[in-house]
Amino acid sequence: MGSIAATAVVHPNVSLGEDVTIEDFCIVGVPFQGWAGEATFIGSGAVIRSHTVIYAGNRIGRGFQTGHKVNVRELNVIGDDVSIGTHSIVEHHVTIGNRVRIHSQAFVPEFSVLEDEAWLGPNVVLTNARYPREPGVKDRLEGPVVRRNAKVGANATLLPGVVVGADALVGAGSVVTRDVPERAIVAGNPARPIGTVHY
Amino acid sequence: MGSIAATAVVHPNVSLGEDVTIEDFCIVGVPFQGWAGEATFIGSGAVIRSHTVIYAGNRIGRGFQTGHKVNVRELNVIGDDVSIGTHSIVEHHVTIGNRVRIHSQAFVPEFSVLEDEAWLGPNVVLTNARYPREPGVKDRLEGPVVRRNAKVGANATLLPGVVVGADALVGAGSVVTRDVPERAIVAGNPARPIGTVHY
Amino acid sequence: MGSIAATAVVHPNVSLGEDVTIEDFCIVGVPFQGWAGEATFIGSGAVIRSHTVIYAGNRIGRGFQTGHKVNVRELNVIGDDVSIGTHSIVEHHVTIGNRVRIHSQAFVPEFSVLEDEAWLGPNVVLTNARYPREPGVKDRLEGPVVRRNAKVGANATLLPGVVVGADALVGAGSVVTRDVPERAIVAGNPARPIGTVHY
Repeated sequence: MGSIAATAVVHPNVSLGEDVTIEDFCIVGVPFQGWAGEATFIGSGAVIRSHTVIYAGNRIGRGFQTGHKVNVRELNVIGDDVSIGTHSIVEHHVTIGNRVRIHSQAFVPEFSVLEDEAWLGPNVVLTNARYPREPGVKDRLEGPVVRRNAKVGANATLLPGVVVGADALVGAGSVVTRDVPERAIVAGNPARPIGTVHY
Repeated sequence: MGSIAATAVVHPNVSLGEDVTIEDFCIVGVPFQGWAGEATFIGSGAVIRSHTVIYAGNRIGRGFQTGHKVNVRELNVIGDDVSIGTHSIVEHHVTIGNRVRIHSQAFVPEFSVLEDEAWLGPNVVLTNARYPREPGVKDRLEGPVVRRNAKVGANATLLPGVVVGADALVGAGSVVTRDVPERAIVAGNPARPIGTVHY
Repeated sequence: MGSIAATAVVHPNVSLGEDVTIEDFCIVGVPFQGWAGEATFIGSGAVIRSHTVIYAGNRIGRGFQTGHKVNVRELNVIGDDVSIGTHSIVEHHVTIGNRVRIHSQAFVPEFSVLEDEAWLGPNVVLTNARYPREPGVKDRLEGPVVRRNAKVGANATLLPGVVVGADALVGAGSVVTRDVPERAIVAGNPARPIGTVHY
């Protein structure tokens, strides 16, 4: 019962599962610089909402949902039942587990890892370059890691390479400069421990 | 003298006032999950700029303006002379008074209330879920309230349920964790009082 | 070898250099309020990615690149080899030097100045109105100045009129309320000096 809108652009070498919906003004399977024909897989039941752009070479599981005007670059591995909210950006070489939810207007740079059930709130910004524009910076990118079931509150910023432990909670507006232990609650700029998750 | 671009998609059951302009690549009246035919009203003089998406069931007053690529979900009540800037998102069940201005890239979640003349700066993020993903969280959402003529500075974050008092001013980049009294000026993370508005 | 997509809208009085690519669902040369026929120049080698909107009256150098869904208002002067990332917004009367990079989801308001090699990270927000909505505010806008080779980290906020000195580095998530000296490293809310750039 899926459908592909007449205005949507689907490039060659895109493999769609059953019941995939692609709404108006979307572009799926965009060739990237150096593209050598890598296929794009999007599993059954996906709903790609309007004005979304997905590059080639992604491997995306079942039940994928995007909001509107989402941007997903190339060569990511994305699990089942993942949702990426309106205006969010996922760059390339990102690893996303199952049942991850990225809310609206978030930014997930290259080499980030979001484990199963991780949750990013609206406007969350992950970073991966300690010294932007330094010579060789592209060889030293460190994506943050958000472990299983951790939650990162709205408009929080994660510094490069930071690890947010399993079940941890990062308060809204925090700037996370150090690793966050499992189940810790942190908040502030810079973020400091303020409690522990009990559930 | 309004006009509807040839590429714009206008769904059934959308009622437009006089002189409404809908630019290219917009989608207006998008049916939502559980949609039972609720109409969408957009008052006279509206300008809906390109790539904007507005769901069904909204009741929007006269003189409505959107920037480009705005996203408005369903069942909101929006007053007269409201402007929502480029890339901003208004979720569902939001109440917006008259002459409210939401600047660019802002996020306004479900159950938020913005009273007359409220002003949200660019990238302002309101939140409504204290414990994201907790069981039953959707029954306990608390939208912030921004009272009459209050201003929330750029990139500020409001925690769930926070009330920003009338005429108050929230400094840019603040993280507001408690209610802000009428006419207070607050700033910082967490935001603290730094003065009073005298005008 | 450039190309203009069939779905792109290019308004009259747009002058394109050689090898310019304009992707699907873009709109280039949008007339602004009070437009008196000012031309739009985009230099050779530009790549304007999908869903991008560029208003009339811009003078843009060679090698211009946009991400997807970028928004550039009218009457800006933009140098050579400038890149503006996905979802970023540049308002009007902005001056941008050569080799400037604006990353994703950034906001650059009216009267901002970005000198050569300046770098803005993802979600960086510049501001220009000290007292939003005050009478006469539009006559007193003060855009920030980001000097040569300065870098502003992800999700940082610059207050109106702030000057970030040459080669300086603003830490991610900072709220910059005062001028930043040349080569200084600042961080926090409000941002304070934490070191000096040595390279």
